[in-house]
Amino acid sequence: MKPIEFWLSVGSTYSYLSLMRLARVEAGTGVRFELRPFSVRAIMVEMDNIPFATKPVKARYMWRDIQRRAAGFGIPASLPAPYPLEGFDLANRVAIVGRQEGWCRDYLLATYRRWFQHGAPAGSEPNLSDTLREIGQDPERVIAQSDAPETEAAYAAATGEARAKGIFGAPSFIVGDELFWGDDRMEDAVRWSLAGPSV
Amino acid sequence: MKPIEFWLSVGSTYSYLSLMRLARVEAGTGVRFELRPFSVRAIMVEMDNIPFATKPVKARYMWRDIQRRAAGFGIPASLPAPYPLEGFDLANRVAIVGRQEGWCRDYLLATYRRWFQHGAPAGSEPNLSDTLREIGQDPERVIAQSDAPETEAAYAAATGEARAKGIFGAPSFIVGDELFWGDDRMEDAVRWSLAGPSV
Repeated sequence: MKPIEFWLSVGSTYSYLSLMRLARVEAGTGVRFELRPFSVRAIMVEMDNIPFATKPVKARYMWRDIQRRAAGFGIPASLPAPYPLEGFDLANRVAIVGRQEGWCRDYLLATYRRWFQHGAPAGSEPNLSDTLREIGQDPERVIAQSDAPETEAAYAAATGEARAKGIFGAPSFIVGDELFWGDDRMEDAVRWSLAGPSV
Repeated sequence: MKPIEFWLSVGSTYSYLSLMRLARVEAGTGVRFELRPFSVRAIMVEMDNIPFATKPVKARYMWRDIQRRAAGFGIPASLPAPYPLEGFDLANRVAIVGRQEGWCRDYLLATYRRWFQHGAPAGSEPNLSDTLREIGQDPERVIAQSDAPETEAAYAAATGEARAKGIFGAPSFIVGDELFWGDDRMEDAVRWSLAGPSV
């Protein structure tokens, strides 16, 4: 069975819930997820899709909803986490390097934990270097590589691939040609992957 | 146990899924829902919250998502349904009259079925009069009452009440002071109602 593509940007809040329960969902169902970092912000800006920044009522709801959902999943969270992220693009270019080098998942889990459990924004110091050291990577080398033109190009290419698949938010899950948007569609994506098309 | 407030506007697409499984959720859990029609459009315009009208990629996804979710719930649907509704406000003022007179739920179920299963837009003819006759109401009398100033005032008051509760979309569920937004939070609302606060 092909892995489910799990498209996310560091900076997406609901992606925290999906990341934290990823291992449990894989163990419980036998599916596998492949992490695909991209710039959801670039696509949302293009679409004039601004769900929270100018909508305080909706932003307040979002944090409360994540708090309740995290509690329901037994996931620790100290909310609201710092938002939005100043280091958004760097955080995601590091993930791109991590994908090329095989430590993308470890990085995402660790940087999100520091962000959502300890209030240290992802993509900025000290989260960035502490996370990289935690997963056995040299911060100086990785950050230099993350700022290199080929990483920028790979990040733009991933975003283009997401756009071509009709992705407009994060987290998004792709099973074959089928798009599922949101942590609350993770189970739908798993069912689709296991049982095939139902409609 | 107090009923869960189920705030909706005829015109909301995901509300179809919640309405169609309302009786089943009530029978399966013992909770009751109280239907509260309001103008989600008025609140969304105030918030510059335009999820679909200017976002074709997201609108396409929405219909596909509803189609998959409806299939998963065993709910018939012929999609995409006509959208948005020209008769949005009239459809909801009729629901306001129905709430005052005790046939709001029957009306909503019947008008949504005609809209989502047979392609006849809610709030317009022939859906409106056919629906009212189907549930034993006189269309001429009800439509006149729906256009009366006191109904307009009750509709505005309901919308103000929704705004005061922090509601920004439909369907929304209120349990005590707790807001749950979206058909995909219906189960969360039920759990909250049965088990009380968890966080």
